[in-house]
Amino acid sequence: MLAYNIHHVAIAVSDLDAAIAGYESLYNITPLSREVVQDQGVSEAMIAVGGSHIQLLEPLTPESPVGRFLSQNGEGMHHIAFAVSDIEAALAHLKSTGARLIDETPRLGGGGHRIAFVHPKELAGTLVELVELDNA
Amino acid sequence: MLAYNIHHVAIAVSDLDAAIAGYESLYNITPLSREVVQDQGVSEAMIAVGGSHIQLLEPLTPESPVGRFLSQNGEGMHHIAFAVSDIEAALAHLKSTGARLIDETPRLGGGGHRIAFVHPKELAGTLVELVELDNA
Repeated sequence: MLAYNIHHVAIAVSDLDAAIAGYESLYNITPLSREVVQDQGVSEAMIAVGGSHIQLLEPLTPESPVGRFLSQNGEGMHHIAFAVSDIEAALAHLKSTGARLIDETPRLGGGGHRIAFVHPKELAGTLVELVELDNA
Repeated sequence: MLAYNIHHVAIAVSDLDAAIAGYESLYNITPLSREVVQDQGVSEAMIAVGGSHIQLLEPLTPESPVGRFLSQNGEGMHHIAFAVSDIEAALAHLKSTGARLIDETPRLGGGGHRIAFVHPKELAGTLVELVELDNA
């Protein structure tokens, strides 16, 4: 149906600068990019790891989704993102299975990509993001 | 220092067959391999996603580490594994930074690879596994 890759693994952090410094110190990997994504209420950094990425997410406010995640769970893995070549087709397939979607239609995410989230209750307690990439 | 890739993202599940069926139905991806790893108390499946993998972990007993994780947190993301070319060098570097390690020396993991875990309190609440691969 679709070409998939793990585009990124997102980690909620309380201090983006400290987390970036930790990845540099422990694993010798530095961020490719930093960006504020107002729509998702986060300041984020993307760190390339092989053909995939770690995405560090610091909430802009405690009331944002990542802010609420942090206050409930503390720092830790937040979601996994699959790269897809056609997000409309991916969402149509998911709807055909009856999957619970957070986003019925794509919205704009970091890097200007079209994204959509699948509810964590759908499968294995895992919040899944679809990211549309031209080369997926 | 080291060549890294995201080797896998591990997800704790209560029913391995149901989780595999869910990945097949929702994302058209099927497991490459299934294996019981007695040392870690899990029955696991590896699903290839692009150049990386989703690893599904079902505990063999409620008292195993993944069994305790499930009873505390429910199903969800458990750890992230980085591929390294030389696990001794990676552990030596981590020790030089003072990082808290779960495994001071490598042990044998799934697929016959040498592995070691880094404590989740070390960085961003994330349990990290190092996996030594010849082609990392």
